[in-house]
Amino acid sequence: MKSLAEHLPAGALVTDPDILAGYRQDRALDPDAGTPLALVRPTTTEQVSTVLRWAHRHRVPVVPRGAGTGLSGGATAQDRALLLSTERMREITVDPVTRTAVAQPGLLNAEVKRAVAKHGLWYPPDPSSFEICSIGGNAATNAGGLCCVKYGVTTDYVLGMEVVLADGTVVRLGGPRLKDSAGLSLTKLFVGSEGTLGIITEVTLRLLPAQTPQSTVVATFSTIETATAAILAITGRLRPSMLEFMDAVAINAVEDELRMGLDRTAAGMLVARSDAPGEHAAAEAAIMVEACEKSGATEVFSTEDPEEGEAFTAARRFAIPAVERRGTLLLEDVGVPLPRLGELVTGIAEIATRRAVLVSVIAHAGDGNTHPLIVHDPSDADETARAHQAFGEIMALAIALGGTITGEHGVGRLKKAWLPDQVGPEVMDLTRRIKDALDPHGILNPGAVL
Amino acid sequence: MKSLAEHLPAGALVTDPDILAGYRQDRALDPDAGTPLALVRPTTTEQVSTVLRWAHRHRVPVVPRGAGTGLSGGATAQDRALLLSTERMREITVDPVTRTAVAQPGLLNAEVKRAVAKHGLWYPPDPSSFEICSIGGNAATNAGGLCCVKYGVTTDYVLGMEVVLADGTVVRLGGPRLKDSAGLSLTKLFVGSEGTLGIITEVTLRLLPAQTPQSTVVATFSTIETATAAILAITGRLRPSMLEFMDAVAINAVEDELRMGLDRTAAGMLVARSDAPGEHAAAEAAIMVEACEKSGATEVFSTEDPEEGEAFTAARRFAIPAVERRGTLLLEDVGVPLPRLGELVTGIAEIATRRAVLVSVIAHAGDGNTHPLIVHDPSDADETARAHQAFGEIMALAIALGGTITGEHGVGRLKKAWLPDQVGPEVMDLTRRIKDALDPHGILNPGAVL
Ligand SMILES: Cc1cc2nc3c(=O)[nH]c(=O)nc-3n(C[C@H](O)[C@H](O)[C@H](O)COP(=O)(O)OP(=O)(O)OC[C@H]3O[C@@H](n4cnc5c(N)ncnc54)[C@H](O)[C@@H]3O)c2cc1C
Ligand SMILES: Cc1cc2nc3c(=O)[nH]c(=O)nc-3n(C[C@H](O)[C@H](O)[C@H](O)COP(=O)(O)OP(=O)(O)OC[C@H]3O[C@@H](n4cnc5c(N)ncnc54)[C@H](O)[C@@H]3O)c2cc1C
Repeated sequence: MKSLAEHLPAGALVTDPDILAGYRQDRALDPDAGTPLALVRPTTTEQVSTVLRWAHRHRVPVVPRGAGTGLSGGATAQDRALLLSTERMREITVDPVTRTAVAQPGLLNAEVKRAVAKHGLWYPPDPSSFEICSIGGNAATNAGGLCCVKYGVTTDYVLGMEVVLADGTVVRLGGPRLKDSAGLSLTKLFVGSEGTLGIITEVTLRLLPAQTPQSTVVATFSTIETATAAILAITGRLRPSMLEFMDAVAINAVEDELRMGLDRTAAGMLVARSDAPGEHAAAEAAIMVEACEKSGATEVFSTEDPEEGEAFTAARRFAIPAVERRGTLLLEDVGVPLPRLGELVTGIAEIATRRAVLVSVIAHAGDGNTHPLIVHDPSDADETARAHQAFGEIMALAIALGGTITGEHGVGRLKKAWLPDQVGPEVMDLTRRIKDALDPHGILNPGAVL
Repeated sequence: MKSLAEHLPAGALVTDPDILAGYRQDRALDPDAGTPLALVRPTTTEQVSTVLRWAHRHRVPVVPRGAGTGLSGGATAQDRALLLSTERMREITVDPVTRTAVAQPGLLNAEVKRAVAKHGLWYPPDPSSFEICSIGGNAATNAGGLCCVKYGVTTDYVLGMEVVLADGTVVRLGGPRLKDSAGLSLTKLFVGSEGTLGIITEVTLRLLPAQTPQSTVVATFSTIETATAAILAITGRLRPSMLEFMDAVAINAVEDELRMGLDRTAAGMLVARSDAPGEHAAAEAAIMVEACEKSGATEVFSTEDPEEGEAFTAARRFAIPAVERRGTLLLEDVGVPLPRLGELVTGIAEIATRRAVLVSVIAHAGDGNTHPLIVHDPSDADETARAHQAFGEIMALAIALGGTITGEHGVGRLKKAWLPDQVGPEVMDLTRRIKDALDPHGILNPGAVL
């Protein structure tokens, strides 16, 4: 430890237990989080490399951490591990001619969006947590968001990276080129690797021209069936720029906090948007209104006013924190091929009834990615046990429906027991072989994913 | 060999030298192609697995082959290797609800496009060779094309895969889900792996709604400088659905064959298209016309007629075969960040002059990906030597400009000597570690990429 501190600038290495305490968990709030050896907050790639070289030599585990908003325990502290936080790596340069940005990992997603917006450009991926999560964490988890249904996920926007490998070697992968077939697609392998293969110290991002003003449709439904029918009716006709779902519990939780006049009696609500150019946005909104009406919506509302639309989007984004005020959450992230969405939602309701726990379902509905929020009281051991049973059963259900245990949050530590069920032993073996080849001593985020 | 034949259906294993001769080369026409042991043409994944198990046990190299249109020698036969052709694996199913298709690798790109078009859907990636190259080859090379400038490359459309690994193990990766963060992004690792990590036996493709009718702009320029200025002027203002370039040699070669009235005196020609919805296509075309005029175009022509536009697109696609009639080609595929395009094209002209060889430059200009075609007479040893010198120098130039030795054709065997210069020893080492982990005996496409 002293040998490490000597090679880092003053303040980069922290051992004060009070400060460490604030870094032991991510938003999965794992009660079993370990006690780390120290926290390092490097400002340069060189320092990250120094840390890894030291850790590699001394076989000390390293848990990478962005902003700690992860929901699957990927950044949970481990006993005797170093926590490596990227929060002080915050540079960004934007090149409007190539429409790319080069960012250090600690910058927040919202800060990236703002920096590129100054040049009339847009970085699409927009996790609901965009104001509090880091771009490095987004790359490490292949984060999704609300606009993915039309614009894809983080990997679709990462053209290049700088990565520090387990032994401290620094590699540059890809670059500001839209097309590059030189060698293996290593950039894409590191996207979504959840800190298990290397530390991302820089990302080169592809940008789009600024998004045009969106039209917004809000529809309420008296049954889950009619709501899921409307989702399929919409996606069957066009590609919305957003298509989000909230169930009754979420609607009421949000309404309790925001008092914006949401229909508390509805079984479900959709918020859909179109960013087609010019008057095509309104035309697409009209098609979505019709799809909702024909599917049996109880009320449909449509607006061209971007601010009004943004208010409904913000309401949807606020759903997780709002439901969290009802109790501690076990947060799911299961996804299915879109036609199975109805079966998934019905099945989740059955599990909730059987296990006698409250499950609120919100969803990035347009791409079949749902977030069942399992509400429970951790001081009630029996309820907590039932919540965990439901948690596993929901993943098993998603797998049975040809789906995934995680659409965007990653496997982390919370979901790793279910990963083999989804991908099978051969893929686990393949994953293990790549992990061992890149991190032979297993020091990078041990216990995550694998 | 007998032990292998016994496990395959009659006709799947071919040793007839006359038939084998037709499979020894891809379109790189490597004169040093080896003499293969046999050709296998499996129809099922099971048979591919049988072949690989046998090859793994007996340490026999396997060269995968799609339609053999590759331009970097990735499918060149090796002495004592098995050639594994996917040409008989031709099933496809299309799911319009999830907007996905599941295809076997031997289907041609054009056949995939046609199959999905029946459902009103569109598979965007469109290499110029789309009528003769396989979808498996496209995935293995991460093929690009004309619409990439707006719609991205093959990897952006591959959601899942079935792959047979070196030892015959069959793995399923990803699936028909737009979002899936469960485990490492293995699907993306196999895209562009050029047959060195496994045999792709099935791909799950993401589809888009049918493309709307395109407006087309054709502009000619008296200098390369004005043409490259127009390219930057266009991409600075919008995202065209196509932005292609041909130089004087290519214009004349195409005109010789097609007689469509191209301006033989022009130094360069751009073909640009917009597929913005409704009248926005014409509006974007008008912006592109203005950009060309302001940049100093000698003539600018614009049409809303899709067929007329398609004729110019076809002319651009025909450029490689047309220039090929002037002599044997060494085909480059270098790319640079867009602002360096002018320097690249000027530098190529200097190399051509210095080495006294004819180099015709055509380009997917909108994404900075150029195809300098080095014309030479292989019976002229001195000219051939100069052509090869120019080939290397053009790659060195691209690297010096922050570019890539291959934007879309892949490294194969032709370009592997330059790969370390581009990516550096650390990335080569990382690549080698992944290769060794997945193919410990090095039987998969030995000599390609690495
Ligand atoms: C209210 C709320 C809403 C959310 N909504 C969404 C949503 O819509 N979509 C979505 O995808 N996610 C969502 N999330 C989850 C979370 O915000 C994302 O997973 C985000 O990408 C995590 O970023 P972070 O910086 O907080 O990473 P962390 O939580 O710090 O880390 C996440 C993982 O990445 C690794 N990691 C972080 N940085 C690096 C690096 N530089 N190099 C290597 N590994 C690294 C960590 O080890 C860990 O495994 C939400 C979270 C909250 C609290
Ligand atoms: C006139 C012409 C124009 C072209 N234009 C373009 C263009 O615009 N954009 C572009 O990207 N390319 C272009 N190409 C190059 C070529 O068509 C592409 O590289 C194409 O993707 C190759 O497909 P194929 O089926 O012919 O593959 P092959 O040539 O048979 O093989 C290519 C590589 O992939 C491997 N491979 C093939 N199938 C599999 C499989 N199932 N599993 C594992 N590995 C496999 C082979 O081993 C080899 O390394 C052009 C070629 C020609 C002749």
